[in-house]
Amino acid sequence: MKIILNQDGFSKALNSVARIANSHSTLPILNNILLRAENGVLQLNATNLEVFINNSITAKVEEDGVVLVPANLITDFINNLPKTKITLKTKDGKLKIEAGNYKSTINTISTDEFPAFPDDKLKTGFELDSELFKTSAGQVLPATSNDTTRPILTGLYLHTFNDKLYLTATDGYRLAEKQLIDKKTDINTIIPATTISEVVRVIESDQAIKVSLNDEQIKFEIGQITIISRLIDGNFINYRSLIPEKTDNSAEVDRSEFVQAVKVAELFARQSAESIILKTSSANKTLEINTITSEFGDNNSEIEAEIVGDASITLNAKYLLTALNAITGEKIKFSFSGKLAPALLTGQDDSYKHIIMPVKS
Amino acid sequence: MKIILNQDGFSKALNSVARIANSHSTLPILNNILLRAENGVLQLNATNLEVFINNSITAKVEEDGVVLVPANLITDFINNLPKTKITLKTKDGKLKIEAGNYKSTINTISTDEFPAFPDDKLKTGFELDSELFKTSAGQVLPATSNDTTRPILTGLYLHTFNDKLYLTATDGYRLAEKQLIDKKTDINTIIPATTISEVVRVIESDQAIKVSLNDEQIKFEIGQITIISRLIDGNFINYRSLIPEKTDNSAEVDRSEFVQAVKVAELFARQSAESIILKTSSANKTLEINTITSEFGDNNSEIEAEIVGDASITLNAKYLLTALNAITGEKIKFSFSGKLAPALLTGQDDSYKHIIMPVKS
Repeated sequence: MKIILNQDGFSKALNSVARIANSHSTLPILNNILLRAENGVLQLNATNLEVFINNSITAKVEEDGVVLVPANLITDFINNLPKTKITLKTKDGKLKIEAGNYKSTINTISTDEFPAFPDDKLKTGFELDSELFKTSAGQVLPATSNDTTRPILTGLYLHTFNDKLYLTATDGYRLAEKQLIDKKTDINTIIPATTISEVVRVIESDQAIKVSLNDEQIKFEIGQITIISRLIDGNFINYRSLIPEKTDNSAEVDRSEFVQAVKVAELFARQSAESIILKTSSANKTLEINTITSEFGDNNSEIEAEIVGDASITLNAKYLLTALNAITGEKIKFSFSGKLAPALLTGQDDSYKHIIMPVKS
Repeated sequence: MKIILNQDGFSKALNSVARIANSHSTLPILNNILLRAENGVLQLNATNLEVFINNSITAKVEEDGVVLVPANLITDFINNLPKTKITLKTKDGKLKIEAGNYKSTINTISTDEFPAFPDDKLKTGFELDSELFKTSAGQVLPATSNDTTRPILTGLYLHTFNDKLYLTATDGYRLAEKQLIDKKTDINTIIPATTISEVVRVIESDQAIKVSLNDEQIKFEIGQITIISRLIDGNFINYRSLIPEKTDNSAEVDRSEFVQAVKVAELFARQSAESIILKTSSANKTLEINTITSEFGDNNSEIEAEIVGDASITLNAKYLLTALNAITGEKIKFSFSGKLAPALLTGQDDSYKHIIMPVKS
């Protein structure tokens, strides 16, 4: 291999794939990046066996070739070089790197054991706007579970319902659902949360994301970057009946006031298993938030609200904060029906719904 | 106690003392802040037994009083309140806090066991410009040791020599010395590094710091904040003979180029116990930096330099980076005498000196 390329482009490409290379702790060969030079292009590959990532950048390729090099060393090294032309050249199993007055020789690793990039035969399924994808992922990801004994809860359920495409996640205590786009053909798949996070991480500007999939794999094409991931096996829970269609009580409040009051309540709630009590008062036109702890003391705050009904519900303060932070816009509608039914939070429009199971009190 | 004060001033004062309250892990009573209201002033006290801190802020005191409250809870709580008037009132062993629509009751703790603020009889010794103090502390602190079995190395040696005041620290492998101001009266004391860090942390703007001390304690007055600390017992090492007065070899280089080359060399040096080789070449007018590792490979870089002599020395790359970051200005003078004598690094002027012991190679 002999190629010449710019420091800034190479540095950026290395950073885009290095995280995947460093996310598998037990198989050392995966902590490397594969560099393949051919046809005027340098391809960078990394994988943690669950996700494969490929980034292609243009380079002056004087001699084709493939090398495998330690991800951390090559990335940190190229990041720290001055913005200049870099020459990469292999010789006697070593990669020689020259950039201005810097000369390095990196020992390469045999590529024999490195997993091949999947030779997918997936057709392009549909396109998504990258901004919509990023926002929606940010709204739904917080509701996923870390519990690997229930794999489907660690994923995001991408599916069609009544000709609309939805992204949904739940950990059993709360659930987030976002309506994405109109979509007639059936989709019904569970994507690992870590894959979605990777896709979000490599999105750069407003660009279309091409998504294609079959029963086992999903492919995201974001500009010059391709991410292929396995899918999670299983059926997602039939959740739609859990979202309340009609509620007895509701409070419409200013989002930032609600966030501030719950933040303060949460400081006390750390001593009471995060439990806080929310109470609607139609006479006072307020939503009251109470925390009572035996060790630290009590906290009470009131925020102005448009109220329907007088009732109270106990919620986990951290779950509530997560929901409030996922909702966009200035107003929040908080709806519930007594102490036992799930509470529903929505923003200006109905495209995003977040429900939280109450704490028994 | 009954007082009224502004959220922003109270919040700032709590943050200034909370870190000390949270720095003692084994004695729970120290994780509290003492609030004392009298004579139109609210005093906030915290201690970790090594350092005592006091901050005084003006408040409308309607009733004098003293309470002890959990540092984390009160600080986080007040930080999160809106910018408004806050009323604090004690009743039945509880502290009631009201701010707009927020009402809290915090259980207080008995003040009986809380250490009293030292009743010092220290005279003001001298004043230091806060900017000079901050910069100098930042330059000398990195050379202190964490090894508590050799207490004097965990401190900064504040002392006079030939009518000048100096601040010095060493961990046995490197040494940093900064000349502060002219000072005729003798000073010879070792201050814990953690105390110096606390003083730096509370410096706000360009203000004079009043320093007073005796054989056991030192007091820093920074605006409304007073910090009193114990001193470290013992005699600092007689270090002046270690600083080379004359060296055989030297390289004068651009600071940022030197930093970048050492950063890159350090990436490789992680595999060679951080050893890097520096070599002056008077023919090429370059300072060469080399790293050789068996696992990863080799790195070599050259930077333009004004050179005296041809020789090489092996240094710890991390120590060298720390020294380079502590030196101000655009140029660095790097001087040494062969492989065994300590290397000296200085900036534009001679007020700051950093020496590093070589690695045997």
